[in-house]
Amino acid sequence: MGYAHPMDYQSLLEEIRQAVRADFGRGAVASYIPALARVPADKFGVCLLTVQGEEYRVGDAAEPFSIQSISKAFMLMLALRLGGDELWSRVGREPSGTPFNSLVQLEYEGGIPRNPFINAGALVTTDLVLSHLPDARKALRDYVRVLAQNFDIDFDRRVARSERRTADRNAALAWLLRSHGNLKAPVARVLDLYCHQCALAMSCVDLARAFLFLANRGMSPLLGEAIVTPAQNKRINALLLTCGMYDAVGNFAYRVGLPAKSGVGGGIVAVLPGRYCVAVWSPALDRSGNSLVGVSALQLLTQMTRHSMF
Amino acid sequence: MGYAHPMDYQSLLEEIRQAVRADFGRGAVASYIPALARVPADKFGVCLLTVQGEEYRVGDAAEPFSIQSISKAFMLMLALRLGGDELWSRVGREPSGTPFNSLVQLEYEGGIPRNPFINAGALVTTDLVLSHLPDARKALRDYVRVLAQNFDIDFDRRVARSERRTADRNAALAWLLRSHGNLKAPVARVLDLYCHQCALAMSCVDLARAFLFLANRGMSPLLGEAIVTPAQNKRINALLLTCGMYDAVGNFAYRVGLPAKSGVGGGIVAVLPGRYCVAVWSPALDRSGNSLVGVSALQLLTQMTRHSMF
Amino acid sequence: MGYAHPMDYQSLLEEIRQAVRADFGRGAVASYIPALARVPADKFGVCLLTVQGEEYRVGDAAEPFSIQSISKAFMLMLALRLGGDELWSRVGREPSGTPFNSLVQLEYEGGIPRNPFINAGALVTTDLVLSHLPDARKALRDYVRVLAQNFDIDFDRRVARSERRTADRNAALAWLLRSHGNLKAPVARVLDLYCHQCALAMSCVDLARAFLFLANRGMSPLLGEAIVTPAQNKRINALLLTCGMYDAVGNFAYRVGLPAKSGVGGGIVAVLPGRYCVAVWSPALDRSGNSLVGVSALQLLTQMTRHSMF
Amino acid sequence: MGYAHPMDYQSLLEEIRQAVRADFGRGAVASYIPALARVPADKFGVCLLTVQGEEYRVGDAAEPFSIQSISKAFMLMLALRLGGDELWSRVGREPSGTPFNSLVQLEYEGGIPRNPFINAGALVTTDLVLSHLPDARKALRDYVRVLAQNFDIDFDRRVARSERRTADRNAALAWLLRSHGNLKAPVARVLDLYCHQCALAMSCVDLARAFLFLANRGMSPLLGEAIVTPAQNKRINALLLTCGMYDAVGNFAYRVGLPAKSGVGGGIVAVLPGRYCVAVWSPALDRSGNSLVGVSALQLLTQMTRHSMF
Repeated sequence: MGYAHPMDYQSLLEEIRQAVRADFGRGAVASYIPALARVPADKFGVCLLTVQGEEYRVGDAAEPFSIQSISKAFMLMLALRLGGDELWSRVGREPSGTPFNSLVQLEYEGGIPRNPFINAGALVTTDLVLSHLPDARKALRDYVRVLAQNFDIDFDRRVARSERRTADRNAALAWLLRSHGNLKAPVARVLDLYCHQCALAMSCVDLARAFLFLANRGMSPLLGEAIVTPAQNKRINALLLTCGMYDAVGNFAYRVGLPAKSGVGGGIVAVLPGRYCVAVWSPALDRSGNSLVGVSALQLLTQMTRHSMF
Repeated sequence: MGYAHPMDYQSLLEEIRQAVRADFGRGAVASYIPALARVPADKFGVCLLTVQGEEYRVGDAAEPFSIQSISKAFMLMLALRLGGDELWSRVGREPSGTPFNSLVQLEYEGGIPRNPFINAGALVTTDLVLSHLPDARKALRDYVRVLAQNFDIDFDRRVARSERRTADRNAALAWLLRSHGNLKAPVARVLDLYCHQCALAMSCVDLARAFLFLANRGMSPLLGEAIVTPAQNKRINALLLTCGMYDAVGNFAYRVGLPAKSGVGGGIVAVLPGRYCVAVWSPALDRSGNSLVGVSALQLLTQMTRHSMF
Repeated sequence: MGYAHPMDYQSLLEEIRQAVRADFGRGAVASYIPALARVPADKFGVCLLTVQGEEYRVGDAAEPFSIQSISKAFMLMLALRLGGDELWSRVGREPSGTPFNSLVQLEYEGGIPRNPFINAGALVTTDLVLSHLPDARKALRDYVRVLAQNFDIDFDRRVARSERRTADRNAALAWLLRSHGNLKAPVARVLDLYCHQCALAMSCVDLARAFLFLANRGMSPLLGEAIVTPAQNKRINALLLTCGMYDAVGNFAYRVGLPAKSGVGGGIVAVLPGRYCVAVWSPALDRSGNSLVGVSALQLLTQMTRHSMF
Repeated sequence: MGYAHPMDYQSLLEEIRQAVRADFGRGAVASYIPALARVPADKFGVCLLTVQGEEYRVGDAAEPFSIQSISKAFMLMLALRLGGDELWSRVGREPSGTPFNSLVQLEYEGGIPRNPFINAGALVTTDLVLSHLPDARKALRDYVRVLAQNFDIDFDRRVARSERRTADRNAALAWLLRSHGNLKAPVARVLDLYCHQCALAMSCVDLARAFLFLANRGMSPLLGEAIVTPAQNKRINALLLTCGMYDAVGNFAYRVGLPAKSGVGGGIVAVLPGRYCVAVWSPALDRSGNSLVGVSALQLLTQMTRHSMF
């Protein structure tokens, strides 16, 4: 594809930063909990890490934000690590075609969530992790700290408490899962861990570091060790591409064309296998719940580098 | 229709009792909680009360059993008494066309249950009653005791505890209602009262007495006072006919043709307005969850008297 | 119930006619085909026939209008007459809980419509009638003429043609039925007959006469012969009460409390078993597709006579 | 990724051919039309074309078979060529989460199919093509002939006729689309073209040639001209990856990890952008309707080359 010379990612990111300014003011910051609604809409950061270890940053790349649903990817990784393929008897691996918090699919399909990135599926991965670890909350935090090589990463307790107070619909999902025998731990414990993982505060730099292994066949260049097996890595990337962007995976695959996971905190983390991991943050969301400016920035990145999955 | 002469209901009930023996052994006793599964399948009782005050009994008419969903009618009556038409902004009055415990309809229709006799609707009437009464459980029991004129009526605590342990799906419904703002009291309190009302132990005699007013424009002949207004009475009977027999209202309307409410304990209570209230009990259920022998008995009753609603 | 003296129905109907004037101007005339949209919204007629043969009329009771879905009741009667219980292996007898023209229920339930009064169910009764009769269209017309004792009754060809041109969704239902093996005749023939039956032009007088037998255990007092068996009669009345008023059967059962069938032409026919058959016509519809003034008029009738099913 | 040396694809394909023999006998040949049911289950062919123009074949690579739903990709390409982005107001670009021929999603979402690869979506692309071309059937055939550089490619008339006779469900979809105003041409014409495109008979060699441009940013190396724009190319590949394998896209993305389209004739065509296009044929299908051996073969290909999208 003609990439003999090293890409000047820093100039690229600067250029993208200028270009997306036109989009500031569009979209809406998530407002279902006060802690999220207070985040300034004009925050913007990007961090790109190559598998060779080069790091590029622009804007608020080092400022922590609420990772929200991006945490579902961490829980999936942990669940695979702890339980292996046990997980796949309890969660599917296909796009859902329904909103992320829908109970309809779950009822029609006997309590098996379509994939680990809709809420019901993430409740199952959370439950599986809980069943393997005595102090799962701490274990998750430590796991993420090691992956990102940043031991200041922590839960935002205020966000976690807010999440817990507005978790009625997730409670409905959890009880429905339980009625189908697909939730083992007490619902309150599952919801507590679920709300905490959503409230993990991480920066673009943290995220890019933590997910870099996905661009490198499961091996973390930072840690020099395998985080998941190559097969698991392929599975996770395939799931990210087909299920990672709420109800807009098709559009994201076209516009950006990278496996990615988004959160309503405005973060998106994406990988180009063999090349890089990139994390972007901009709080205002489009109608699908993905960062509006974040998607534009990633689209520019793959357009300007002329390199995506497709 | 030529009913100048008094009906010999006692002979009729005896004849019915003989006739339905052929059906014993068909159907299956509810088994989702042990307390129900232990009830002998060959129990059979009927009590018929005319609006003139004549009482006829056969078989195990005086033996208490778990009234289960029949209690939803009591909660509806209480909710109407306490809150009046306030209820109808929170619950619909149409058949659901979906199973009694489905979450699908609730999700598609914004958290408004189709009617007060599906589980979701009964959770809302329960919630409404809770919001009006300091000790709703006791109030419900006393209300039923007065209606039936039997002060020994009580909750079967063992059944109530069992119900509570298997209420996962109802918990899902409750949390989904709550996420739509259609449940005010804490979910645990609603479920606790809900499980207790299902565990009310009453006999056919109790039920026939308690619901006799429905055959008499809302006025209880036993108490000599109005239980509901004539308009509310019509509403309740209309709801019973169109929504009272789970997913078999059309078939029941044809075979029996009376407003009725059934429970998975094997009880059915039905009224012929202007004439009588009848309660029947036989624990084995058909595939719709209605007492198999109970429906047959009521069908014989309306065939032999040549008098139903139609 | 104290109806020893004959009811002065004529005065009652006059009173109702005055009372419902307040409602003129509310609701909307069906506009999906031009022929219906042109009908003046202030038309109003009632005809009540007692089983003893007394006839009472007010307003435009003798003016023919498009009976639309009321024809589904005729097709059900014909299908039962021609095929007996054969029908019930192909159509259910329960309320649908979904809009009258929905494909969803049909897909989920393997091509068996919930009841004969939703469009899919009526397509099946139409198909069954077609399979028994060489010239079903003429046979239907003659059947209705005899029932109503009016040999001028005919199809409104203009309406039938309009119906045919807007029958896309019914074509979808028909093909879906066919894909499940639940439609035998060619789709075009079924749709042609279906559109013609909807275009039958009848007056309130015609309808009251044609359906009077439903108030008389299946025996037509006009013809002195049985139209359906007493069991079939009960079945039809039960279906009318639980499924006859689109998605408003619960509300209609409460407000009126009679087995009834409505059409978007603004007609409603209803029966009080043992007493009378009544037909009302007023073209403006409520949101459920039932005649707004028609429902009010029937509500007044059962309130003022203090006699409904409940 | 270390692919300095040219890949020995021929040996690879031979090896794969040996390996998949173990799977012969599993799965079931499509039987809904006799013409498909008669195809021997042990047929197996692969053709791989690199963007540099090297061609590799094993087995029955040159034998034509019924391409079935693979034709949906041709119609999408033609619809984009003829109507540009006009298409996207009539068809979505997201996975459906429901079976390929479901009417449910279509009804709930106002007649807009989720993507061009479910039947409803393909009916819309077919309709759009029809509206632009006087003789669309011939135009499609010629388009495919040119793309594949094989002027013997034709419709299998016997298959087309069989398709037409079993197209009831597609007729239902077409009429439902039409009732929503999302089908312009007469239903019969749309279905006729739809059934013909499914009946195109092509070999693996034909398919690999016809779709090679998808691996080359829209430019056909065979023709030396652009078939679609680079943006359209990305769109098509993104759609193939997220929607191209019926209800098994997630699993296929994991096992194989290439944009691909399958048909119930047992064919699958897939591309690795920048490298190759590969077509495989084996008639027995897995439960998702994809070629069982075909998927295994492609999985081996990406495993053995250690190169997929992920």
